[in-house]
Amino acid sequence: MYMRSDCDVCRSEGFTAHSRVLIETDEASGLATLNVVRGELLKPGEAGLSESAWERLANRPRPTARFSHAPTVASLRPVRAKIHGRTLEAEDIAAIVNDIAAGRYTDVEIAALLTACTSAGMTMREVVALTHEMVAVGERLHWDREVVADKHCVGGLPGNRTTPIVVAIVAARGVCIPKTSSRAITSPAGTADTVATMAPVNLDLSAMRNVVDRHGGCLVWGGSVQLSPVDDTLIRVERALDIDSEAQLVASILSKKVAAGSTHVVIDIPVGPSAKVRDPIAASALSRLLTQVAREFGLELRVVLTDGSQPVGRGIGPALEARDVLAVMRCDADAPEDLRRRAVTLAGEVLEAVAHCPRGAGGALAEETLQSGIAWRKLQAILEAQGGMREPPVSGHRWDFLASAGGTISAIDNRRLARAAKLAGAPSSPAAGIRLLARLGDEVQVGQTLFELHAETPGELAYARSFFDANRDLLRMTTGP
Amino acid sequence: MYMRSDCDVCRSEGFTAHSRVLIETDEASGLATLNVVRGELLKPGEAGLSESAWERLANRPRPTARFSHAPTVASLRPVRAKIHGRTLEAEDIAAIVNDIAAGRYTDVEIAALLTACTSAGMTMREVVALTHEMVAVGERLHWDREVVADKHCVGGLPGNRTTPIVVAIVAARGVCIPKTSSRAITSPAGTADTVATMAPVNLDLSAMRNVVDRHGGCLVWGGSVQLSPVDDTLIRVERALDIDSEAQLVASILSKKVAAGSTHVVIDIPVGPSAKVRDPIAASALSRLLTQVAREFGLELRVVLTDGSQPVGRGIGPALEARDVLAVMRCDADAPEDLRRRAVTLAGEVLEAVAHCPRGAGGALAEETLQSGIAWRKLQAILEAQGGMREPPVSGHRWDFLASAGGTISAIDNRRLARAAKLAGAPSSPAAGIRLLARLGDEVQVGQTLFELHAETPGELAYARSFFDANRDLLRMTTGP
Repeated sequence: MYMRSDCDVCRSEGFTAHSRVLIETDEASGLATLNVVRGELLKPGEAGLSESAWERLANRPRPTARFSHAPTVASLRPVRAKIHGRTLEAEDIAAIVNDIAAGRYTDVEIAALLTACTSAGMTMREVVALTHEMVAVGERLHWDREVVADKHCVGGLPGNRTTPIVVAIVAARGVCIPKTSSRAITSPAGTADTVATMAPVNLDLSAMRNVVDRHGGCLVWGGSVQLSPVDDTLIRVERALDIDSEAQLVASILSKKVAAGSTHVVIDIPVGPSAKVRDPIAASALSRLLTQVAREFGLELRVVLTDGSQPVGRGIGPALEARDVLAVMRCDADAPEDLRRRAVTLAGEVLEAVAHCPRGAGGALAEETLQSGIAWRKLQAILEAQGGMREPPVSGHRWDFLASAGGTISAIDNRRLARAAKLAGAPSSPAAGIRLLARLGDEVQVGQTLFELHAETPGELAYARSFFDANRDLLRMTTGP
Repeated sequence: MYMRSDCDVCRSEGFTAHSRVLIETDEASGLATLNVVRGELLKPGEAGLSESAWERLANRPRPTARFSHAPTVASLRPVRAKIHGRTLEAEDIAAIVNDIAAGRYTDVEIAALLTACTSAGMTMREVVALTHEMVAVGERLHWDREVVADKHCVGGLPGNRTTPIVVAIVAARGVCIPKTSSRAITSPAGTADTVATMAPVNLDLSAMRNVVDRHGGCLVWGGSVQLSPVDDTLIRVERALDIDSEAQLVASILSKKVAAGSTHVVIDIPVGPSAKVRDPIAASALSRLLTQVAREFGLELRVVLTDGSQPVGRGIGPALEARDVLAVMRCDADAPEDLRRRAVTLAGEVLEAVAHCPRGAGGALAEETLQSGIAWRKLQAILEAQGGMREPPVSGHRWDFLASAGGTISAIDNRRLARAAKLAGAPSSPAAGIRLLARLGDEVQVGQTLFELHAETPGELAYARSFFDANRDLLRMTTGP
């Protein structure tokens, strides 16, 4: 919020820059951080709000508001104790999650909480309590069915956009899979970002129910149905910090699944030296924590460890990944085979998990469902029902990265490749990102295009190019003997 | 900074809300966080800056500026590694401190750094490197004398304002003590806040030298001479989080001392259940770390553990503490005896540390210097030389907290008392705070005033009162058998 330094309220309350202020209107109340304004931007007696504060606090022009010092946030005390190494009790976590949900934490305070939980780690009981409270402050879906399937990838592998394909296959087999996905955390695209380039994903609860009732599945953004809304706040700050802790990850994933009313979940954990999970030991620790916490909520959970040594498909970025998905769904001749295989495997796991087919028969059933075209018709039906299917956008600015020498591709740095796609504008610029044309083990000739860089503005294209100039080793080649 | 969403630069660069933007003018460059403006607050082609950004980047009206995406801050990579438990190398710390000094870190990133260093702790080598780098990015004073004395309190004990008294006594004995102090971190007053109610403290380096050359001592704010400027940035975020780690504390204290050119330093560590250092074990760990790190910089360091069970003197808050200091200096009959005794002890330690008198004789010499009035004349001379001595201000709003029953005072919660003084407006409202009239062991009658609450505005007075209503147990009493 904004207030003049010579405003009566500002003076009598003793507000200064960065004061935390409680704002109460006739309709609502909330906290804001004060920016003190000198000069004529505001008239005497006026205060200004940011758009997000305005949406939360005022639903009519020129409302009257009362301003006072924000009450002390008592739950910051256990946060400080956690920073100093103490474990959080369930009631501490309840108070913290409630205060964050009510907008009482600043980003600086959330950053301290996330860092402390990453640095000191969280106990199993802390993770269960966090998951529980994150579910409690949001909506919770009930589907009136015995089996509600879901799949999730922990992320960290650029281009691993199997979800739309899995949903299409599973729903085509008559299994209910009301999929809610998140936006990207630290990656260049989340499933919601990718699907948003093909159809609306911001469906409210009744619109989502409507799609699921008619087609058995959906592909919507979780945030618009307010499942575990605190997760979205935490994710925003995690994104600014570019950190992602194991405990936080488990609470984030499972709070969404529990709130979404899922009963059977398949989790894809890609493992590779530059994936989010770097080695089998970390993968099995994460897998164990996921399974244990899921059990507390009566959730049937299957973990699938997959190859995380290089990006999946060709596109990295919302629209570029959507194009790969469409190629697989349409069974195009040049569809990326690795993406197709992974999606079929995961869909097979889901079909087995819900006992739709015998153990070991899921993969073949999924394959047949994709090949026959019924999965593709299902995806079209779902996206049409979400508000209309469209082709993903094409970027206005492109630059090709050519091999400066011949050789064999020996290593690809997922993290820096993802970083480059983000610098090019992904995910907020949906057509931006990278189209990777070389894979591990490929023999390439001098002058061959290794990847294309796509951006929506020349500034972003130049910015991502300058990153490549400083990081030419993110693709490594060996030359023959 | 502020920019219109329809601005050409905003669009072509792909800036969005909270983008980090590199701003370059003909005179300077720096980073800023973007607020996107819709509507007519800015004219097309204009950008707005906060006052602090304006001061850093523009020294003339209507300058032209270039805007681009901020380059990636490479030193955030070791910060993330530290969050995940790795130790920082000396060159990582150099890069981090340099980037913070150049304004490249957001508050959210600084919060993550501080939290990780508090949560995981820092090794001796990390603390030495941090101290070294914090000195390196600021000014460094040289005094051309063999002995330059200093004293410092780690804080946490409300009202413990011995510094002006110690400086007056030590300087009166002819020992050079060019004291730079900080503003409050998490307390209701720092020494600089208190002295500022009696004389100017924002002296630049040459003004400070002038005072020290003439009087052998000074009492200035460290920030205005740019000693360890990164420390001030870290302190600002620590204050918002209300955390204060041991390693950070050592680097903060010693970087200021090394940069100030001190050779002999006495450190006061108050120990008590609600002081910053709670027990003798923590005190001796802190004392050991201080001594070890000081040795690396050739600094002679003496640690004095003092009673931290209750506030010192009566005042808590800048002006109220200044009144206690003046009463001691003037040898008033009702001067707070505990403050007087502590200051004399510490001044005696300084005089012994610099070998001005034999071991064991410091206390008596300090006492004599105070009693004779020469210390008081020295304080007046120093404050006059800093720009003129004045009486501290008196608050406009006061409320007395009366005992609701008779009994014996058995416990005083320093932390919540300090918190109440801050809610009343201290330290930014200099006359605000608490005047504590009861001490541990005092027998009080029903209706007797236990303390006075002082504020500069009715809003702040009401705010602090409401805190007391919820925290009546911050003073505990036992009733007789």
